[in-house]
Amino acid sequence: MSTANLPARVTLVEVGPRDGLQNEKQTVPAATKIELVHRLQAAGLREIEVTSFVSPKWVPQMADNAEVMAGLQRKAGVRYAVLTPNLKGWEAATATQPDEIVVFGAASEAFSQKNINCSIAESIERFAPVVAAARAAGVKVRGAISCAVGCPYEGAIAPERVELVARLMAEIGVQHVGVADTIGVGTPRQVQRALEAALRHYPLAEVSGHFHDTYGMALANVYASLELGIHTFDASVSGLGGCPYAKGATGNVATEDVVYLLHGLGIDTGIDLDALIDAGAFIRDALGQANGSRTARALLAKRGA
Amino acid sequence: MSTANLPARVTLVEVGPRDGLQNEKQTVPAATKIELVHRLQAAGLREIEVTSFVSPKWVPQMADNAEVMAGLQRKAGVRYAVLTPNLKGWEAATATQPDEIVVFGAASEAFSQKNINCSIAESIERFAPVVAAARAAGVKVRGAISCAVGCPYEGAIAPERVELVARLMAEIGVQHVGVADTIGVGTPRQVQRALEAALRHYPLAEVSGHFHDTYGMALANVYASLELGIHTFDASVSGLGGCPYAKGATGNVATEDVVYLLHGLGIDTGIDLDALIDAGAFIRDALGQANGSRTARALLAKRGA
Repeated sequence: MSTANLPARVTLVEVGPRDGLQNEKQTVPAATKIELVHRLQAAGLREIEVTSFVSPKWVPQMADNAEVMAGLQRKAGVRYAVLTPNLKGWEAATATQPDEIVVFGAASEAFSQKNINCSIAESIERFAPVVAAARAAGVKVRGAISCAVGCPYEGAIAPERVELVARLMAEIGVQHVGVADTIGVGTPRQVQRALEAALRHYPLAEVSGHFHDTYGMALANVYASLELGIHTFDASVSGLGGCPYAKGATGNVATEDVVYLLHGLGIDTGIDLDALIDAGAFIRDALGQANGSRTARALLAKRGA
Repeated sequence: MSTANLPARVTLVEVGPRDGLQNEKQTVPAATKIELVHRLQAAGLREIEVTSFVSPKWVPQMADNAEVMAGLQRKAGVRYAVLTPNLKGWEAATATQPDEIVVFGAASEAFSQKNINCSIAESIERFAPVVAAARAAGVKVRGAISCAVGCPYEGAIAPERVELVARLMAEIGVQHVGVADTIGVGTPRQVQRALEAALRHYPLAEVSGHFHDTYGMALANVYASLELGIHTFDASVSGLGGCPYAKGATGNVATEDVVYLLHGLGIDTGIDLDALIDAGAFIRDALGQANGSRTARALLAKRGA
């Protein structure tokens, strides 16, 4: 019978504006993105992944990165993160004064090759000068370990692969690692093993979980992570986004659903669920799309009842 | 850090043909219902809730109950259950030779009044002769405790209410109780408390979980139940059904999603997931509806890739 103590407080990293919108085909105006970030911070989010400094040739949706960063009315206590895959990205990002940068590695060799055209080892070498530059500038560096449980090309990924990437990231000075089940195939014990692998090189406060709801497992995986003491999770408002490499993939786990789970467990998030639901409804209305959060759908229906 | 031993084997009770289709507005032909049951048993389901012996005035979808039961090609080792709310229902049901009957009580006084027009105590009195008759005929009796975590009228339901209903059911000879989060509001620790309340009057093998995915919590709740040793769950193929009393409610947790979770945890179910997905696709095609199982959607998309 499990009576593991769960964390008293959890930090959610809102990735909707970046990870979510990145996969959106229709161009979202910078003003809409800025409004979304403003609504998210008003709802109590304290960590927001805002945009990506990648080539607009690869990700046209993020071509307005500097405009979005410049348009933010920053709120005290909120940390704004951006994705910077290389030195050129870092140089463009630094002018916009992010609090954190995110670099991406994969625990799958095949995914690394297909997604960023280099081996895992090469990707780490490529990040090293970015990490060094960011740390020298006093900017925190987070590393995402994608395909940490399964890969669309390789299938199951052994925890040892996650440990290797975590070690390599630690060696180049990455301060936090996110264990990402990019294609959503993981179940609770597999996810716990991947997180434990990362915990061999990082303390509890610097390992986060990033789950997709492709197979419906994300909330069970969040709960299983809490049992390990993990208290930082990525989530995407209204479930924005998905993984273009996994056919039939639904989006990231919805922030509203994670907040509902956490509050139900008596865990503090600092987030106002009603205001968060409004933020999700705002962006889904702007996109003309159905809301991907089941908690939001249930509570919006209740409001209308 | 949780390393609770999970059950090695789980029994799933397929409730799609009854609980799922009961809420379906379009009339489903008896032949379609029979074909669904045949596909489910071929996929490895060993407990199937087939139909309901209630007044066709209240539930017209189940007016073909005797026809469906008579049309089944029964498979050795499979148990066929039917819902019988009163003696009249039992008398009609007994001619069709069910292996089990199901009676329904609520842990919420207000829900009992609005749903079955009597108090909790009165509902138990009403069931008593049904239970006695079934037991005398050698038919197993399962009791469902609806609104075991929350009620649309009363809000949160205390575990003590679940314990009371479990005790009353035990006193009249009900042999198994299902703890049902009818409106899907529960989170893992609340669900564990409700299950523990039922476990004060029933052994582990005779307490099951019945969860809805309205807020996205069902799989996390299944996982939390496994941690208590619970090894019987209701589930509905392709997520058929919902609760008409909860606006915005999505259906029962999809059997496919539960099977994916359990197999991922290394738990044996005896179910062939691919065949189960075919059964769900069959009924959703017949209804002209989207599939409510995320696992089915993901794996059907992969098949088409």
